[in-house]
Amino acid sequence: MSVNMIHQLNQHKSIRKYTDQPIDRELLTSILEAGVRASNTGNMQMYSVIVTEDAKQKEALSPAHFNQPMVKNAPVVLTFCADFRRVHQWCKINDADASFDDLLWLMNATIDSMLVAQNVSVAAESEGLGLCYLGTTLYNAPQIIDTLELPKGVIPITTITLGWPDANPPLTDRLPMNAVVHFEKYEDNSDEDIRHLYFEKEAREDSNKFITENHKENLAQVYTDIRYKRADNAHFTKVLKETLIAQGFKL
Amino acid sequence: MSVNMIHQLNQHKSIRKYTDQPIDRELLTSILEAGVRASNTGNMQMYSVIVTEDAKQKEALSPAHFNQPMVKNAPVVLTFCADFRRVHQWCKINDADASFDDLLWLMNATIDSMLVAQNVSVAAESEGLGLCYLGTTLYNAPQIIDTLELPKGVIPITTITLGWPDANPPLTDRLPMNAVVHFEKYEDNSDEDIRHLYFEKEAREDSNKFITENHKENLAQVYTDIRYKRADNAHFTKVLKETLIAQGFKL
Repeated sequence: MSVNMIHQLNQHKSIRKYTDQPIDRELLTSILEAGVRASNTGNMQMYSVIVTEDAKQKEALSPAHFNQPMVKNAPVVLTFCADFRRVHQWCKINDADASFDDLLWLMNATIDSMLVAQNVSVAAESEGLGLCYLGTTLYNAPQIIDTLELPKGVIPITTITLGWPDANPPLTDRLPMNAVVHFEKYEDNSDEDIRHLYFEKEAREDSNKFITENHKENLAQVYTDIRYKRADNAHFTKVLKETLIAQGFKL
Repeated sequence: MSVNMIHQLNQHKSIRKYTDQPIDRELLTSILEAGVRASNTGNMQMYSVIVTEDAKQKEALSPAHFNQPMVKNAPVVLTFCADFRRVHQWCKINDADASFDDLLWLMNATIDSMLVAQNVSVAAESEGLGLCYLGTTLYNAPQIIDTLELPKGVIPITTITLGWPDANPPLTDRLPMNAVVHFEKYEDNSDEDIRHLYFEKEAREDSNKFITENHKENLAQVYTDIRYKRADNAHFTKVLKETLIAQGFKL
């Protein structure tokens, strides 16, 4: 499908409801092939993509994603994994001393996984499909590893649910561009700058609804006291570290 | 520009030579805006993009990228950073207890940075621009931090050089799709499978050139003994860890 690409990217929305229509295997293959054409570190392709189409497998994955309904409703769930297993095995049978299991390579493999994931997403959207990224993947990696039978050397990084859109939500807000883009040098913000940059976000009707519903003083507290609490961050970081080590990564 | 998106993604090549033509600020802005429309974790936008156009700044960045010539030759260099500084400052002035400085959030912010980077890349290519990712960013983060004056809470993740193409290299090879895509469960490979999956890669003329030039027995050894040695991986992981800690990340 021909589209104005920048227009398409500007229209991106997370789609959480899908029709019953399946995704043809041929279409899925062409989307995945486009994904794999993304740049990657040293052309070692240190990632794997797990395709979940089976209803039982989706049901098994669902709790790992805090039972968000799109996991069971989407025709296809894609789990993008950092993977040093394949390249280590290739090196081993070639008597080559591989050491791609450290923090540097976890980061490289995460970068590579995300390049594939976003290429897949852009390709899918250009064909009219809708998708939603699931940030829960890193939170509940142990359950995902279990369900998808990920061996040592493989860790799930992100997940997308994919299907034909049955919803058309509004665009989500973004900070002004000068909050995130710096020219030549990082321009640090005064507290006053920060107040300006977050002014529109804080003034939104939905922001104020979150504040009221949660009995908080402001939006920042909704983030820190409700959505992403210190205790939860500490807990899930601990689980993530243990999982990485159990999967053979050296931190 | 209207393009068949999947066709565009399938034609992706790293472009390392650029014409002298600059990139209009208007075009650059529209590409960056499309980048920022990418999904991100909890809509916290934990990233910053540093635009380098100044020749002196490019020269200062160049050694951090092992003097690869495209850094000085590209009209624009973009450094994508994981950034918890802005959100922490926002939380602080709102008396909110932010804790986005741990491993989980380093990973989340890396994911967010990469989604922006790949959206920017796709948008740029759809307008006829060419680009090259620089994996050197994580290797030499301290020098980049210094040059771009990245404060605590900010770490560079990846870099792209961007310009109007003055080269048209061939597509690089990829492993067969069944090496990287698994259906329902991770299918582990036998050594025989691995030999099949890497057969084409190993048979390539350029692979054999690398082997001969480097006096190695096989391609895997070129990767482990020449390109990404154990001692180098250990060294750069150590530097990366120290840098993350110096920038305020808790590992």
